[in-house]
Amino acid sequence: MIQNPSTARYDVCAVGNAIVDVLSPCDDAFLSAQSLTPGSMQLVDEDQSAALYDAMAAGVEASGGSAGNTVAGVGSFGGRAAYIGKVAEDTLGEVFSHDIRASSVHFDTAPLVGGAGTGRCLINVTPDGQRTMCTFLGAANQLAASDIDVALIGDSEIVYLEGYLFDPAPARAAFEAAAAAAHAAGRKVAITLSDTFVVARWRAELLAFIEQSADIVLANEGELAALFETDDFDAAAAQLAALVELAAVTRGEHGSVVIRGEERVPVAAFPIDKVVDTTGAGDQYAAGFLLGVARGLSLADAGKLGSLAASEVIAHWGPRPMVKLDQLAQQNGLVLTA
Amino acid sequence: MIQNPSTARYDVCAVGNAIVDVLSPCDDAFLSAQSLTPGSMQLVDEDQSAALYDAMAAGVEASGGSAGNTVAGVGSFGGRAAYIGKVAEDTLGEVFSHDIRASSVHFDTAPLVGGAGTGRCLINVTPDGQRTMCTFLGAANQLAASDIDVALIGDSEIVYLEGYLFDPAPARAAFEAAAAAAHAAGRKVAITLSDTFVVARWRAELLAFIEQSADIVLANEGELAALFETDDFDAAAAQLAALVELAAVTRGEHGSVVIRGEERVPVAAFPIDKVVDTTGAGDQYAAGFLLGVARGLSLADAGKLGSLAASEVIAHWGPRPMVKLDQLAQQNGLVLTA
Repeated sequence: MIQNPSTARYDVCAVGNAIVDVLSPCDDAFLSAQSLTPGSMQLVDEDQSAALYDAMAAGVEASGGSAGNTVAGVGSFGGRAAYIGKVAEDTLGEVFSHDIRASSVHFDTAPLVGGAGTGRCLINVTPDGQRTMCTFLGAANQLAASDIDVALIGDSEIVYLEGYLFDPAPARAAFEAAAAAAHAAGRKVAITLSDTFVVARWRAELLAFIEQSADIVLANEGELAALFETDDFDAAAAQLAALVELAAVTRGEHGSVVIRGEERVPVAAFPIDKVVDTTGAGDQYAAGFLLGVARGLSLADAGKLGSLAASEVIAHWGPRPMVKLDQLAQQNGLVLTA
Repeated sequence: MIQNPSTARYDVCAVGNAIVDVLSPCDDAFLSAQSLTPGSMQLVDEDQSAALYDAMAAGVEASGGSAGNTVAGVGSFGGRAAYIGKVAEDTLGEVFSHDIRASSVHFDTAPLVGGAGTGRCLINVTPDGQRTMCTFLGAANQLAASDIDVALIGDSEIVYLEGYLFDPAPARAAFEAAAAAAHAAGRKVAITLSDTFVVARWRAELLAFIEQSADIVLANEGELAALFETDDFDAAAAQLAALVELAAVTRGEHGSVVIRGEERVPVAAFPIDKVVDTTGAGDQYAAGFLLGVARGLSLADAGKLGSLAASEVIAHWGPRPMVKLDQLAQQNGLVLTA
């Protein structure tokens, strides 16, 4: 049970890379020709991004960014969410700002003026729905500790940090400032491991951060394996349980497992007709799970809320819900109370 | 049978409003609160567009424009397509240009420099999939007769004109120049009526244009009724048949009817599980139908190709195909030969 010293204004405040996604269908041969590792996220510079875009099929654009997707999901559930992240003053920045605010998320980080454009993530999706991402961080890269609104974080039950922020140095400082602000106010710190390659690049730093500063960890089973350098799920889960009070590990079509001390709560995936695009699946799982935890749901119901949100987003193109998740939750007998 | 004096380089060259769509879910109450007529398209200015965008839910962006959607569909079928339309030198212009070229469509209209931004169409979609559109034409409004590439049109079996171009005066001049160029080269001129409100605004002008310059008309049954001011489908079809050599009229879930002289060829709609977003349904029907006609398919098969393309696009968000239509055609036993 997550204890809070007082009821906070926000359920979840996320800190992340503010990014707009470009999603296009592709085949395996395209990934191979572009030397892309299927299912991975890699950082690219502006020229690499432009060259890849030239080669990509026609697609759709949608606001993204892992933690941004998560708070948009929290807002769609009717939760109280806030976001801290950096866009530029350009069209994509307007799109990002519009979409996150239209999802009832508080967002007022000052945009970057006169520097790089709003970050974009080029996502190639194979017919099985798997996404392979190349991210040009742009303005998101300039998120700094000075962007962290200490009062906002102090007024949020959970601050949620995107593991991707371990890559840019100024953003990592922002990340640590946010964690410090949360703990100073007696709030909880949650982190997602984001990506196996992020874990591989920053394994020691991530482990140290989790041990010192995190209360809740979200990960998929690949990231968990990378973090503890073992394919033994039970062993890795036990190691994670020893570091934090609560964790949830997603396992794709096999659902997820919520971990607390000795407890292991298996959660089934919601069945859907056809997986179209898995972009945002983990982010939406995090939305449901974190909101459930912030509202004091049972671990099983918090996990179910996560599975439900994930099932909505993988059935269509784009990383954020296209229906109101609160209605979906009601239809599935999951009730959130303030 | 459409006769061509010689084999042309392109099957279809379209002239249209180059526009990027912003698609968001909404409910009926939202349309009512915004005083929008469900299912309609209206033109708005930049301020009205910004105010409506502020009120809209989070959504996705995708290249659109009726005729642009159609040639993207032709390209997706493996057809040879070209496009003439005006974007600005901005992010949305880059998105539009990328997507249409990535759909194998030849596109080299000079972008507008230093004027309005690329046009955008705000599309609110109700849970039944119906779309209501508010278009800020922006740079698209500046398409002029000087943008018409006479050689390109002369090298296209069919030039396809968007009825929406009747609204902006310079674009209408471009429209007429394109029709003249096609006929001078012995090619066919096709036109879509686009929208019942367009037909209501320009009824006399459209009728005169069709009689003098069009060989093929595409319409839905509402537009057909508006053009001849009658709800009697058979009577309207007979009047249309007297004006042009070939027409196709779509009837939503009831499929379509291909009209040639005394012939009436009914075409069934392809069944799909769930209508998500009807944006682009008519445009994709036109893609399949026109390509089928350009390649000498039977009227029934040309109509089927149209129905197939429409069924793909209404099953997901966005106005253009997200799978290769040539593969879909093959799976359904429809074969196109050069």
